[in-house]
Amino acid sequence: MPEKIKRKVYFISDGTGITAESLGQSLLTQFDKIEFETQTLPYINTAKKADEVIAEITIQAEGRPIVFSTLVDKNIRSQFQAASFLCMDLFHTFISPLEQELKMESSHTIGKTHGVNVKNYNNYMLRMSAVNYVLSNDDGANIHEYAHADVILLGVSRCGKTPTCLYLAMQFGIHAANYPITEDEINMSKLPEHLKDYKKKIFGLTIEPHRLNQIRQERRPNSQYANLRQCQYEVREVETLFKREKLPYIDTTSRSIEEISTQIMSACGLKRRLM
Amino acid sequence: MPEKIKRKVYFISDGTGITAESLGQSLLTQFDKIEFETQTLPYINTAKKADEVIAEITIQAEGRPIVFSTLVDKNIRSQFQAASFLCMDLFHTFISPLEQELKMESSHTIGKTHGVNVKNYNNYMLRMSAVNYVLSNDDGANIHEYAHADVILLGVSRCGKTPTCLYLAMQFGIHAANYPITEDEINMSKLPEHLKDYKKKIFGLTIEPHRLNQIRQERRPNSQYANLRQCQYEVREVETLFKREKLPYIDTTSRSIEEISTQIMSACGLKRRLM
Repeated sequence: MPEKIKRKVYFISDGTGITAESLGQSLLTQFDKIEFETQTLPYINTAKKADEVIAEITIQAEGRPIVFSTLVDKNIRSQFQAASFLCMDLFHTFISPLEQELKMESSHTIGKTHGVNVKNYNNYMLRMSAVNYVLSNDDGANIHEYAHADVILLGVSRCGKTPTCLYLAMQFGIHAANYPITEDEINMSKLPEHLKDYKKKIFGLTIEPHRLNQIRQERRPNSQYANLRQCQYEVREVETLFKREKLPYIDTTSRSIEEISTQIMSACGLKRRLM
Repeated sequence: MPEKIKRKVYFISDGTGITAESLGQSLLTQFDKIEFETQTLPYINTAKKADEVIAEITIQAEGRPIVFSTLVDKNIRSQFQAASFLCMDLFHTFISPLEQELKMESSHTIGKTHGVNVKNYNNYMLRMSAVNYVLSNDDGANIHEYAHADVILLGVSRCGKTPTCLYLAMQFGIHAANYPITEDEINMSKLPEHLKDYKKKIFGLTIEPHRLNQIRQERRPNSQYANLRQCQYEVREVETLFKREKLPYIDTTSRSIEEISTQIMSACGLKRRLM
């Protein structure tokens, strides 16, 4: 098999670099024949730092490096434009058409997205409240608080409930509880009594049994809990339950937490609480 | 005071919409004289869904709506381009220059970023491991696991340690522990004995005392814990400790969790574990 072509890629920002990384990575996935070696360089917010970075980014044997930038400052941006690598300017490319459309100049201020602004305090409190809710309602710990849940995730142990709840809290400020169906409850093959009042908030997660087996093996190797037949049995029963109770559900096997979370937001008609 | 000009904005994607939202919001913050009313519409992945959305997005009295899109499919993208609103195509704008540079066509495949791919399983396990680490090492609960920490956040109660640890885990796969300095330890005015071996991993968080007072008031109103003088005392002492021990630290008051986290990554020389 021939080796993949390699290429160096830099995500450069005067802020956190999160936006440059996110869009840059999504563009790179469209070129799967190339092996990209990526590096994120945040807080490039002075001419000196920009010079240092530009000196560091040298031409490789494999071809010139690719830079994705979200630099706001015009001068720093010009420094990068003048260098000899391919500069994809994710920010300024859209500022001009927006200025024309809105008939005003942009403020060219750095770090507005994730930095100081009036929304920060409110967002911090909303996030903290949502994260605290997830932590105190993890693993069916606190069912008397379900009245305050935005959504209650239901599924077998290790199908992805906790990270999904945390993502919903951190990204959207959503109050997400999760309830693991135990083996006893699976045997009863109906919705646990204390969940009935909250049926409208329940969203099911399922998973491919071989994947579940793999995940549980890492947690408790060679246990009954991790046994493939046990996984197959639990998944079959919980999917039967979802169908019988007409609960919306999603298979987490080949989906990222981002995708599972946004699908839940959309299916449950949830609105983000964070601004 | 004159009312702000209003404008409708849509973030449209055939995937989760997270990237469109992230870059779109960062562009909008450059126009702070306008009040943008935003809506995210994810999973617009069929011609039918696109038609429905386009019909929904009608011209408002305030001016034509602005659309930020990360649509990969060329046909769906054309449907939006043909409509009468301002379309900012965050994805295809950069695909052509990349195709030229890399001398190959892109694969035009939807949902590669946050969807099915070979990295998902590894990322899921890395994230789970990091999140489990945060949860079992929250609030100084498990100091014997500090040998496995990538970073240990130190600060007074409610200065932002837990959400920062969770963000580091979810976003970067970093194993982040956190240790709250108690009043007893503050009185001793030195680094707690059991932290000394891990000094190189410690990063301090501080906060403006009035903000701390505000946050603690919401948690335990009118308590000694929330008292402004108490907050001032704790913050002063912890900052003295940071300086005396030459610990790196950051003020969380006017910074978002994203910004705090990326600054810690950068200052501690941490590399992201998630691909």
